[in-house]
Amino acid sequence: MPTLPAAVTVVEVGPRDGLQNESAQIPTAEKIAFVDRLSASGLREIEVSAFVSPKWIPQLADAAEVFQRIQRRPGTRYSALVPNMAGLERAIAADVTDVEIFAAASETFSRTNTNRGIEESFDTYRDVTSAAIAAGLRVRGYLSTAFGCPFEGAVSVDRVFALTARLLELGVYEVAVSDTIGIAHPGQVRQLLEQMVLTMPASRIALHFHDTRGMALANVLAALDYGIATFDGSAGGLGGCPYAPGASGNLATEDLLYMLHGLGIDTGVRVDAVSDAARALAPAIGHALPSRYSQARS
Amino acid sequence: MPTLPAAVTVVEVGPRDGLQNESAQIPTAEKIAFVDRLSASGLREIEVSAFVSPKWIPQLADAAEVFQRIQRRPGTRYSALVPNMAGLERAIAADVTDVEIFAAASETFSRTNTNRGIEESFDTYRDVTSAAIAAGLRVRGYLSTAFGCPFEGAVSVDRVFALTARLLELGVYEVAVSDTIGIAHPGQVRQLLEQMVLTMPASRIALHFHDTRGMALANVLAALDYGIATFDGSAGGLGGCPYAPGASGNLATEDLLYMLHGLGIDTGVRVDAVSDAARALAPAIGHALPSRYSQARS
Repeated sequence: MPTLPAAVTVVEVGPRDGLQNESAQIPTAEKIAFVDRLSASGLREIEVSAFVSPKWIPQLADAAEVFQRIQRRPGTRYSALVPNMAGLERAIAADVTDVEIFAAASETFSRTNTNRGIEESFDTYRDVTSAAIAAGLRVRGYLSTAFGCPFEGAVSVDRVFALTARLLELGVYEVAVSDTIGIAHPGQVRQLLEQMVLTMPASRIALHFHDTRGMALANVLAALDYGIATFDGSAGGLGGCPYAPGASGNLATEDLLYMLHGLGIDTGVRVDAVSDAARALAPAIGHALPSRYSQARS
Repeated sequence: MPTLPAAVTVVEVGPRDGLQNESAQIPTAEKIAFVDRLSASGLREIEVSAFVSPKWIPQLADAAEVFQRIQRRPGTRYSALVPNMAGLERAIAADVTDVEIFAAASETFSRTNTNRGIEESFDTYRDVTSAAIAAGLRVRGYLSTAFGCPFEGAVSVDRVFALTARLLELGVYEVAVSDTIGIAHPGQVRQLLEQMVLTMPASRIALHFHDTRGMALANVLAALDYGIATFDGSAGGLGGCPYAPGASGNLATEDLLYMLHGLGIDTGVRVDAVSDAARALAPAIGHALPSRYSQARS
């Protein structure tokens, strides 16, 4: 059997990626309490919000206020998505030290989601990344639709490999290769990582899975075998698909932690504290949270 | 990477193990149509019902009629659970060729669930298995609570190993090592199989997972690495926990098939035909079926 990593970093994306896909407008004070509870659970990387146009994502219009009022714990990193230079400037003004850029592996998805093609987005991100690094910030890259696109269907391993390499060349410290529509299966994960780990350090690759078809944890298990040691999770499974009640969007952080701890892998995070944070937020969300761990706890 | 099995047998347990845990009483005609649709999907092993006291499981009181009226396809095996000699006799009278016995790895669960201890159940099953084999039937064994018990908590690998060996000695062709409460994680699966495959052929071991904490497919993936090539599934995820809406009980057959096919493993089963069979039954069940594949299809 392959050797598993001794420790894994779990990147909590619930406050941004999760809430962005929830239809209920969450009060700012609830978001702040949510982030503070997540911090207290032992999570060391929390994606807090995004500095995007409030017209695009009204849910995250209060990004600056959230950053101002959360309790920042020493050693924990709090990040924000920035789509362009204007977003970066707002992030810096809000004293944000970690930003994220969001590229796509599918041209159609890139145009539909961000109103610009892949090349154009890289032109923007080159400037954003340089400026962020010059200002002393750390930059993480997302590569969305890396396992399939709702418009174009299959996405080739070669394309994902090439775009991941290009994001790393921009200066991001890590690329979160993302299964935006939850279509990836472990066969794809193995195929992709077999190629990637030959030429890129596993430490520069994170994986971001959605549990839409129930594959997320199997995909994580497949990736652990290749030495991948950073995975995104969303507390409670926040961000579930609104069209299918009970269906899951983001992989629930609790479910991820339960599996990792079962494998003897250290995360430094208390799973029930994450579950409690999600439960405390649930009344404001307006539907049951899809995390199976949290449901089984009830 | 370990080599995956080229083909996997999926044992469909929805009509028995699934329906037994659903509160809505399903009309006999619906059950028959369900089994016939599952047969048409390419499934070669279908657990149809149980010959138990109708007082214990009213849902399955129509076992004989279901067996009489389903269309048995050549090459497909249709099985029934039998708890004792009386059940076996009823099964034989109903022209059943494949029966199952249900032992537990936890003494308390055995007493609570079947009103007899483990040793007493083995005494019964010794007679049942001998008589069934003498009558030309094939016998499958379940070992329930093999990864944890709702009353006793942890169950040791040594105990599971010993009881699996004893079931095989009775003459069963295969033991479905079962995570009855959906608490297993891939670390446990690896620990158990590491010991088992040293002394038992992998071909005699099947695994039966519940998705209560979302681990089922990760557990399957872990087991494939040890050469295990038989897994139980329940169409639609039938048998979900009634106390947690949207929470899953049995691993959904569709979700299992989607992962296996993605890994390039042949099952001979058409996933959308299984999903269609579950959907056709869903109105009679009275709640949304938890299969994530089927939910994502809608």
